[in-house]
Amino acid sequence: MDLLITYDVETTTPEGQARLRRVAKICEGYGHRVQKSVFEVVCREVDKIRLVAALHAAIDAKRDSVRIYHLGRHALDDVEHLGRPRETDPRGPLVI
Amino acid sequence: MDLLITYDVETTTPEGQARLRRVAKICEGYGHRVQKSVFEVVCREVDKIRLVAALHAAIDAKRDSVRIYHLGRHALDDVEHLGRPRETDPRGPLVI
Repeated sequence: MDLLITYDVETTTPEGQARLRRVAKICEGYGHRVQKSVFEVVCREVDKIRLVAALHAAIDAKRDSVRIYHLGRHALDDVEHLGRPRETDPRGPLVI
Repeated sequence: MDLLITYDVETTTPEGQARLRRVAKICEGYGHRVQKSVFEVVCREVDKIRLVAALHAAIDAKRDSVRIYHLGRHALDDVEHLGRPRETDPRGPLVI
């Protein structure tokens, strides 16, 4: 399945900055970073369940927000991009 | 058509901060903000063309990045959300 993960983590405190690093680190284990807080993930259902559980445990639900979009089969191959290039193959190997 | 717009604008300079405000303002005219740099947009093809042109003109292509995802018909109704609620109806009226 193809997912897009976007997040806002409140970073006004050292705890928030640590949560932000943790959320990014979790996403890096599953997908490709395309912007500061945006990851493209191609994975199996079982991996998605693990990913969501890890994100759920990492955030402060009162302060942070994570959104997981379920994309159609070809959405990741059909992204319009403006500006600074950040070309990655969403189906390529992960560099962790 | 249903779109997801995500952006990174380099804000290390006053010019960058102005570009960030401009990009957000443009997106507010077309869709619903769901995170700091993420907008859900339900629009016609002609509006999308205008939106992309406006974003193209607003950013510094060497420093900023905008991504436009073309979502399937029901993707916006099937978003998993963790944490701080930011519930909006992506098909509801725009508040500008």
